[in-house]
Amino acid sequence: MESAIKTLVTTFISSSKGKENLDSKGFKNLVEKQFSSILEDANSADKVKEMQQGLDANADGKVSFGEYLTLVGYLAQSMSDRKTAAAAQSD
Amino acid sequence: MESAIKTLVTTFISSSKGKENLDSKGFKNLVEKQFSSILEDANSADKVKEMQQGLDANADGKVSFGEYLTLVGYLAQSMSDRKTAAAAQSD
Repeated sequence: MESAIKTLVTTFISSSKGKENLDSKGFKNLVEKQFSSILEDANSADKVKEMQQGLDANADGKVSFGEYLTLVGYLAQSMSDRKTAAAAQSD
Repeated sequence: MESAIKTLVTTFISSSKGKENLDSKGFKNLVEKQFSSILEDANSADKVKEMQQGLDANADGKVSFGEYLTLVGYLAQSMSDRKTAAAAQSD
């Protein structure tokens, strides 16, 4: 688990080039590179822009680490829901 | 990143034995087994109990996946803060 959490942290830090926030370009690159296999709209510039605005709780045009964790939580929740549904079907 | 998120999900599902929520024993085991290297109080039963109560947003005595993600977010945030502080010192 520690390595999984470390991956979440280091991925953000490398995408933000060590800065506290991701700018639009950094967020787009991160989503395309890291989430294209688990997020349908990862390669649609419009959808990624919409996603960024949805995450941008303080509307500063950037994505903070906390806002990024909200996306990770959403992805983990939907992955968990899919696994629970699949397990229920196979019972 | 996908494997990191998968680890978050599968760890919860195995600790909760496929149920939607972790009971107190399941939460204690998860914290001791998974977070002892990154969480100081992971082996203190009282502190883990306190942590569980702090996470239990709907006060149902259990820890849901969403409440568990809050803990993961807290751990990731404090790990990120430590890395950012260390990087600032080495500049």
